[in-house]
Amino acid sequence: MNISNEQVLAALRNVEDPDLKKDLVTLNMIKELSIEDKKISFTLELTTPACPMKDMLKNACFNAIKHFVDKEAEINIKITSRVTKPNDTTQLKDIKNIILVSSGKGGVGKSTVASNLAVTLAADGAKVGLIDADIYGPSVPTMFGLLGAKPSARETAEGKTLILPIEKYGIKLLSLGFFADPDQPVPWRGPMASNAIKQLFNDADWGELDYLIVDLPPGTGDIHITITQSFPIAGAVIVTTPQQVALADTRKGLAMFRMPGINIPVLGVIENMAYFTPEELPENKYYIFGKDGGKALAASFDVPFLGEIPLVQGITEGGDSGTPIAMDKASQTSIAFSEMAGKIAQQIAINNALRSDC
Amino acid sequence: MNISNEQVLAALRNVEDPDLKKDLVTLNMIKELSIEDKKISFTLELTTPACPMKDMLKNACFNAIKHFVDKEAEINIKITSRVTKPNDTTQLKDIKNIILVSSGKGGVGKSTVASNLAVTLAADGAKVGLIDADIYGPSVPTMFGLLGAKPSARETAEGKTLILPIEKYGIKLLSLGFFADPDQPVPWRGPMASNAIKQLFNDADWGELDYLIVDLPPGTGDIHITITQSFPIAGAVIVTTPQQVALADTRKGLAMFRMPGINIPVLGVIENMAYFTPEELPENKYYIFGKDGGKALAASFDVPFLGEIPLVQGITEGGDSGTPIAMDKASQTSIAFSEMAGKIAQQIAINNALRSDC
Repeated sequence: MNISNEQVLAALRNVEDPDLKKDLVTLNMIKELSIEDKKISFTLELTTPACPMKDMLKNACFNAIKHFVDKEAEINIKITSRVTKPNDTTQLKDIKNIILVSSGKGGVGKSTVASNLAVTLAADGAKVGLIDADIYGPSVPTMFGLLGAKPSARETAEGKTLILPIEKYGIKLLSLGFFADPDQPVPWRGPMASNAIKQLFNDADWGELDYLIVDLPPGTGDIHITITQSFPIAGAVIVTTPQQVALADTRKGLAMFRMPGINIPVLGVIENMAYFTPEELPENKYYIFGKDGGKALAASFDVPFLGEIPLVQGITEGGDSGTPIAMDKASQTSIAFSEMAGKIAQQIAINNALRSDC
Repeated sequence: MNISNEQVLAALRNVEDPDLKKDLVTLNMIKELSIEDKKISFTLELTTPACPMKDMLKNACFNAIKHFVDKEAEINIKITSRVTKPNDTTQLKDIKNIILVSSGKGGVGKSTVASNLAVTLAADGAKVGLIDADIYGPSVPTMFGLLGAKPSARETAEGKTLILPIEKYGIKLLSLGFFADPDQPVPWRGPMASNAIKQLFNDADWGELDYLIVDLPPGTGDIHITITQSFPIAGAVIVTTPQQVALADTRKGLAMFRMPGINIPVLGVIENMAYFTPEELPENKYYIFGKDGGKALAASFDVPFLGEIPLVQGITEGGDSGTPIAMDKASQTSIAFSEMAGKIAQQIAINNALRSDC
């Protein structure tokens, strides 16, 4: 007896996406199903290439078919993804999800986190853009080895000039640092800063992006107000270091996203510089800045704790040399970033699914 | 033969202040000279209580009198100071020297440096005020154990309301953090922020101050422009950490002070988080963020390198617990801050002397 499409789909109805709480067939995640004797092939289309449950879902499909259809089936599952978007805004319509990387406090590693998340998501196969919105202290040019780089521009058929983001490591990048001499200060008052930042969103040729990561400046000032009021934001990732003086500022940065009129989902908290481990003493963890401050912050606001990043010389060197540490796939830090990126992408997919249900 | 005032003063004309390049008599630093037989007493009035050459000058006076007047003289030298001011502005006339603690980059330890310099100068006997101008991330309330403190106000005879700074460890403190709920974000655009900061200078009862230290926010934005354009500034101290991404921002922060129309003396560069030394391995220095970046920055701008501060758990704990580490006079860090405060006060005195010569 030949295996039918219906039999396979019926079996896959038993596999539920644990985040979206629906089965894969209902979620329309099974594509290109083809059957030839006992050879069953299909594509599992996830909501993000960074899905941390990739292997689990694949195994579940495998087992469901073996169990409900034919235990001798030869199953070939290809995994792709189609990143969802929060809503059908006409504004920036080719950019699916804008993720803000934020903190009330400066110097906690926002740029490190933003750069490495971008690298990780791009390595997973997502189309990723990165805007460095830290107008007074742009770090992306240094972190990506692009000091002195100047983006070119193209004219559209309608005569509008679009800035072309610079591509590196598969990421499309724009930084206010590309438009100023690295040694020249930018003593701009708020309105000038706000206009400059809007141009990076509106007047650039981003093409299609699954994720546009925005590295915000410290504080809760003009740039924050402008971005949160002008563009649809999928969510904010909060970065902090463990000490009280940093947490105090970070609390405010986080609370800003929950203010009426702003109301942006907080995807979670990342604790940077969690501890220091000397290379020759790998068991020693020095909690130089205190312990578990980020975890406590996440708990007190009831948002996910996304993970901790140790104080590693490689991160500084990576940032300084223009190769974000996440490029080194074997490093512990890279693995940590990969887990964090997965959690963030997963949460966005859940939020998007919830919104489209309403 | 009795010793005369003239003889003593003639002897002291041989002692030169190495900074001001004039002798102590010409500089009018010898006060209250009294002679009784072989007992010679006078007061040496320095330009700052934090003068690093205190003992050297005292010894030089001692030797000059022994040599030129009478080697059996009993000499009693009292040291006081009268802090000079850069110019006779009518604005903020009771505040002698405003010192900005700045950096292009956030999180490099500006607040730590500002707080500990204030503590050190006050301990030396100077009248010190501290303004926390980091509107979006005020750290002074935490660092001085004043979370939740609210300054009171008094009315002047003219009916003007003056904010009363809060006093702690002999320092008069004002922070924008005193006027906001610690958990409440302050999403203010530039003009509101600028007005708020001006009030801390103009509408507060500072009384007489030798030094008013201002802890600036990161960047080169509204607050910086407002303060540098509105008030007479004695100089700026630049704080950085050693990594390239911090230095890049710090270069801009420093360059801002040299822009035409701003033109504020840069008193020097302090390198924070220079290295980490675990308590049980005091010989090990881990240069987590790279090495000598601050020194190189100071050299490239031809400004003094004021010193380095190691990454010490005590600094974090001090900051978090409300007792700046410089309060512990025996600590290495405290000694480092004391040297830095001396160099800063010394430079200001030199600059003030040069200006009054013109």
